[in-house]
Amino acid sequence: MRDFLPADVRRRRYVIGVVETVYEQYGFEPLETPALENIETLTGKYGEEGGKLIFKVLRRGEHEASGEADLALRYDLTVPLARVVAEHRGKLPKFFKRYQIQPVWRADRPARGRFREFFQCDVDAIGSRSPVVEVEIVSAVSEILSILGFNDYTIQLNHRELLTHTLESAGIDRALHDTTLVAIDKLDKIGREAVFDEMLARGIRPESAKAVLENLAGDIPSFPDPSGGPAAENVAGIINLCEATHAAGRVKFTPRLARGLSYYTGAIMEVDVPDLAASLGGGGRYDGLIGMFSGENVPACGFSLGLERILVVMAERNMFPPDVDTAAADMLVTLFDSESVSHSLQLAADLRHAGYRVDVYPEPDKLGKQFKYAAGVGIPRVAVLGSDERTRGVVTIKDMKSGEQTQVPREALPPGAGSEKTNK
Amino acid sequence: MRDFLPADVRRRRYVIGVVETVYEQYGFEPLETPALENIETLTGKYGEEGGKLIFKVLRRGEHEASGEADLALRYDLTVPLARVVAEHRGKLPKFFKRYQIQPVWRADRPARGRFREFFQCDVDAIGSRSPVVEVEIVSAVSEILSILGFNDYTIQLNHRELLTHTLESAGIDRALHDTTLVAIDKLDKIGREAVFDEMLARGIRPESAKAVLENLAGDIPSFPDPSGGPAAENVAGIINLCEATHAAGRVKFTPRLARGLSYYTGAIMEVDVPDLAASLGGGGRYDGLIGMFSGENVPACGFSLGLERILVVMAERNMFPPDVDTAAADMLVTLFDSESVSHSLQLAADLRHAGYRVDVYPEPDKLGKQFKYAAGVGIPRVAVLGSDERTRGVVTIKDMKSGEQTQVPREALPPGAGSEKTNK
Repeated sequence: MRDFLPADVRRRRYVIGVVETVYEQYGFEPLETPALENIETLTGKYGEEGGKLIFKVLRRGEHEASGEADLALRYDLTVPLARVVAEHRGKLPKFFKRYQIQPVWRADRPARGRFREFFQCDVDAIGSRSPVVEVEIVSAVSEILSILGFNDYTIQLNHRELLTHTLESAGIDRALHDTTLVAIDKLDKIGREAVFDEMLARGIRPESAKAVLENLAGDIPSFPDPSGGPAAENVAGIINLCEATHAAGRVKFTPRLARGLSYYTGAIMEVDVPDLAASLGGGGRYDGLIGMFSGENVPACGFSLGLERILVVMAERNMFPPDVDTAAADMLVTLFDSESVSHSLQLAADLRHAGYRVDVYPEPDKLGKQFKYAAGVGIPRVAVLGSDERTRGVVTIKDMKSGEQTQVPREALPPGAGSEKTNK
Repeated sequence: MRDFLPADVRRRRYVIGVVETVYEQYGFEPLETPALENIETLTGKYGEEGGKLIFKVLRRGEHEASGEADLALRYDLTVPLARVVAEHRGKLPKFFKRYQIQPVWRADRPARGRFREFFQCDVDAIGSRSPVVEVEIVSAVSEILSILGFNDYTIQLNHRELLTHTLESAGIDRALHDTTLVAIDKLDKIGREAVFDEMLARGIRPESAKAVLENLAGDIPSFPDPSGGPAAENVAGIINLCEATHAAGRVKFTPRLARGLSYYTGAIMEVDVPDLAASLGGGGRYDGLIGMFSGENVPACGFSLGLERILVVMAERNMFPPDVDTAAADMLVTLFDSESVSHSLQLAADLRHAGYRVDVYPEPDKLGKQFKYAAGVGIPRVAVLGSDERTRGVVTIKDMKSGEQTQVPREALPPGAGSEKTNK
């Protein structure tokens, strides 16, 4: 787990700001859920491996000594959403479109770009089985990546039922489908032969493994045959509709795409860039999960962008706009002696009102040390208000980059960048 | 613990946005720390009562059965800050001014405006003993409350050493100071006589209790005597300097102000409004806390605003601007039949590009039902694009409030509110 110092927070906020703005443009609404859920809400939702990674919270007070846990930290944002939909159904619209950007916790072994506390940016649409839902989500994700400056991403698309059909055709028993998909998911990483060996190790007969790999890793069609049944028709429909959106040309039918989570029931998708082995995000349709809480069958589809991975790639590629990496303050107001403190504070108030972010050097000190401080923390300008300036009704502004000093009338300070926001 | 549905999140974000903007104007920088801290970081920092309220996390894997905890959820934002300053000292400027707005967790019994997960908005300045630090913090807090629309708040100010002096003069032993302050803290709530009784119950001799109450609850000066030693001089200096800031006229010397936390060493402050028994926030100087982590003496002063209490009062007083309570989307695009979906998606893309937040009705449905849906979720306008409109190159825009329908050329959609942001 990590501390985010100011420079880190600014970069994170920039990405989160873009994600939020686009999701709002697509009519999604913000939702936030508590970090702690009842332990029963989470257990049995993430498979055997996932369950081991849940952080559990000790009971309090007299029960603490029992060593029992009754609460657990959020493991993803999808299960809490399903609980919320089941719990607040009456208060929510028929089609509930929400986004949620919050940390989740997994007791995983930390690795590059993998942390025990990390943020997910989820977007989900509840209540409709229409492919328009998938299309709108894919388009929003595509728009976010473009605004952030990505231009080499691919949106892989597949359908859980197409995979099921392929495995069944190859004679693989239903009970072995999940374990087979885990192996197939590694095709891009470890290659066809290694996946073949892994499938055998997972109990698949060689002729079945061969048949599956021929189907998924051989020459694949760039487009599913729409007459291949409802799942193929669904995928073809999504790709066609995406052509009317921002995702035009980005979506690629990928028969081997499997996605790890077991709750997916329909279309599944993933976003990849060439220089990251893992995906930037993924999602799909899960029409059964909410019913696990409400008993009522409520269709749903969502997508989760991984904030930390986006940040890793953007940092490596130098993709942050320069103004994201600027210091907290636009200007430093100097302090001369205890008699002049009030004047400096008044100047700071006026500069803030004019739209500047202003730091005040907190204690009287040599002017040289105050300039040095401003340079060290990256504040671009220093406002000097000595007795000479006060007498003449001016302020000396020193530009720390050029070293140039200019005097401006005390009563006519030029407006700063934040002036519109401040004076509204 | 609570779910925040979209309307709640919008109100919370509005307040947080004001807090962040003002703190940035004052040159504070954002910091975020992980929800989980090592358990040793938190133990022994919050007194006996506080320690009982910490949520502890079970060890994972093979150690889970031991029932032992090694991590704990953040209890406040001050102790994590002290840890960060000790840990990252080399990377931080000499004067480190940070704000932090994150949830904290306390296993308290829930009550009105008190939750087990709640947000604190902290601002702290590290590295200087100058009263300018207190003044800037008080001024920033005052500005936040004014922008939010509060006009009846008071900033109470006192000094820990003045209280120590009062208790010592009354002959109260140092060992009893903390318990005495707990009783004194209730003066405004339960009155002078009840506090007198409570002081006796806490082991204070009647003549000492009487002397203290005469000093603190009798006719009190509106201003400390600056010749009454360094603490009085400090308080007088802060009040004087505040007159040059936004907090002018708001700061009131309050000799009975005690504040609960034991780590305060200097000036202490609290913000009150008449219609809330509890304070909206409080803070003070704590020059010893960081040294508990670093061994090095680093002066510090901070203030914590309680987000939930601010929200409670603002909701009761109807203080939220109308645009905070608007729905996610500015416009709903209707869907006629499966043939026209692409056209509707293209229209949505164009409207978004023009600056509107746009929802698309996800499945073909009767127009009346789509209008009803928009009205139900509060979307103010519906864009209809039927075959008639397509032939004529127009879009029909229905205003849901007036019922009025106007046709606009498809290629010349008027710009929406977000157009500047979107097209930059």
